Amino acid sequence: MGVKKHILVIPGDGIGPEVTTWGKAVLDAVGKKFGHEFTYDEALMGHAAIEATGIPLPDETLAKAKASDAILFGAIGHIKYDNDPSAKVRPEQGLLKIRKELGLYANLRPIMLFDELLDASSLKPEILRGTDILFFRELTGDVYFGEKKRSEDRNTASDLMIYHRYEIERIARKAYEAAQARGKRLCSVDKANVLEASRLWREVVQELAKEYPDVETEHMFIDNAAMQLVKNPKKFDVVLTANLFGDILTDEASQIAGSMGMLASASVGDGTGFFEPIHGSAHDITGQDKANPLASILSVALMFEISFGLKEEAKAITSAIDKALKEGYRTGDIADANTNKAKILGTKAMGQKVLE
Amino acid sequence: MGVKKHILVIPGDGIGPEVTTWGKAVLDAVGKKFGHEFTYDEALMGHAAIEATGIPLPDETLAKAKASDAILFGAIGHIKYDNDPSAKVRPEQGLLKIRKELGLYANLRPIMLFDELLDASSLKPEILRGTDILFFRELTGDVYFGEKKRSEDRNTASDLMIYHRYEIERIARKAYEAAQARGKRLCSVDKANVLEASRLWREVVQELAKEYPDVETEHMFIDNAAMQLVKNPKKFDVVLTANLFGDILTDEASQIAGSMGMLASASVGDGTGFFEPIHGSAHDITGQDKANPLASILSVALMFEISFGLKEEAKAITSAIDKALKEGYRTGDIADANTNKAKILGTKAMGQKVLE
Ligand SMILES: CC(C)[C@H](C(=O)O)[C@@H](O)C(=O)O
Ligand SMILES: CC(C)[C@H](C(=O)O)[C@@H](O)C(=O)O
Repeated sequence: MGVKKHILVIPGDGIGPEVTTWGKAVLDAVGKKFGHEFTYDEALMGHAAIEATGIPLPDETLAKAKASDAILFGAIGHIKYDNDPSAKVRPEQGLLKIRKELGLYANLRPIMLFDELLDASSLKPEILRGTDILFFRELTGDVYFGEKKRSEDRNTASDLMIYHRYEIERIARKAYEAAQARGKRLCSVDKANVLEASRLWREVVQELAKEYPDVETEHMFIDNAAMQLVKNPKKFDVVLTANLFGDILTDEASQIAGSMGMLASASVGDGTGFFEPIHGSAHDITGQDKANPLASILSVALMFEISFGLKEEAKAITSAIDKALKEGYRTGDIADANTNKAKILGTKAMGQKVLE
Repeated sequence: MGVKKHILVIPGDGIGPEVTTWGKAVLDAVGKKFGHEFTYDEALMGHAAIEATGIPLPDETLAKAKASDAILFGAIGHIKYDNDPSAKVRPEQGLLKIRKELGLYANLRPIMLFDELLDASSLKPEILRGTDILFFRELTGDVYFGEKKRSEDRNTASDLMIYHRYEIERIARKAYEAAQARGKRLCSVDKANVLEASRLWREVVQELAKEYPDVETEHMFIDNAAMQLVKNPKKFDVVLTANLFGDILTDEASQIAGSMGMLASASVGDGTGFFEPIHGSAHDITGQDKANPLASILSVALMFEISFGLKEEAKAITSAIDKALKEGYRTGDIADANTNKAKILGTKAMGQKVLE
């Protein structure tokens, strides 16, 4: 039986629009094939929204987001603000606000490896082979949302790193449930030897661990985790982290997996799910038909699996990507010395290949 | 002309004492060879100090530290406290306090590669070859030293991430000066798209950049830096970071370089310099003659170079290590499939090899 879903597309900044086009095209194609009906709306966020309305997350976008069954997002950020630390209005505020407003407290980042891309990583294939990690990054707390202050003379600046028990508990539960359905190992990352917020984090996870005796729990300091991820990525199954540590570790892990351009993420919580590539807005290649659309397409696969519970459809998408890779097709970011030059595709051609 | 120096040895916890023995032996040997006179004192810190006196940094240790010309430290930490997030007294407090009391605001972590160890890294040799990074990690500010709070019901915990302009400026100057004497490139790492403390950080570095026009300055977000370090470590020369980000990135970088067991660090600032391996206390191998003493020995090389300005002596030490490695000798952590089993040495034998 086909489902009916209303999807909000937020293309965002930089390469966001070009890659999101292909995510949407794949949504349509899968809808047609499996008999689902998708309706769409589009909205602004980030730099694009600031240009048009003066603010990074217009009320209209938020209203549309709340009214949709799932959100497909592109990317955020603009170099203009990066170089101007005193800018009051910034694209990223839009993303942070929508996460908070929609209660998207759990950010799932699966690190999957396509066999064909083993050689695209800077890690040795024997270190990499078999890596399969699912990150649970807390997304609406931590130093991201704690009070920010600047002294009147502007010479002192601070951000409050803060966690409440319930925030840790709800994400930890999600991570434990996922671990039960996977490799039954959970690694919780913190800096409990220095930070009070981390000590609370560890306490809560230690308590919950008792409720999930079938899952093996490990606690690791963030510095050690950043190291172990390079040393032996295979040893991780589910990794549970706070917002800031998760930001750092998942980017590191994405590179380990070969390319940022291949990784998608799902943010879920109280309401509508939010799906986006891990990569950023990449202004250096914007509009040049160079961006890798596969992360956006994989975001759609995650949407099918997580928001709609449609596993077969998700599988069809990853298989199509697998097939294109097996046939030797690559975008520039995942090409290596052995790639047949004629098979290096632009954004459009790669999107088209997967559609076929 | 020989120098006279008084050195405080703080063996610390875990493998600290076994590796520090060899750092000290090398100090003695170099002193004899080059005609310097070293006198020593020893003191407690960390778990060892808690066991003996109840506190992680006894006043006596601090007084001895202030009275010395340089400090050679081993390692800190104990698994007992790691698993007890509610412990009030913790070994790490000793290390944090001595950093603060001695004004050790600049932590220098050179990532050097010994050609012989290229294969010990999980990164492909072609990615790694030519990597030479010098980290400047701020060491007495940030969320490490900001106010810590726990609510009365114990359900909320926080740490203040805070920076003052002068703290950023003094470490940035040191980093710029080092960059001028090296590859003339400086990468400053922050999270200015989210954090106010990072925005101040970026402002200050942008201002200073104008005073060092011969150095090429780049600003990078921490998530991107964690990724670029895996993708292309060669692109970095001097990396400047806040305390927490530096903790994470330097551990990650140490693994990229092959082994934690090979990396030393120097903490300097207002007074006496403090030299220690990057590795931790490694309780799992303590007392088994398995620890790699080379990081402690390299800490001594840094001491000669940085605190005493004796470059030739520093060179003699790294050459001795190079020679042992060229002859095929390895400790377990840096051995690989190609290592002749008979040349895998314990702590003592490796220390002895370098002494010879
Ligand atoms: C753009 C930025 C605010 C964001 C974050 O730090 O959360 C991004 O890096 C991410 O990981 O989604
Ligand atoms: C032991 C710990 C407090 C310390 C730190 O985080 O600074 C260590 O990891 C280091 O890097 O020296």
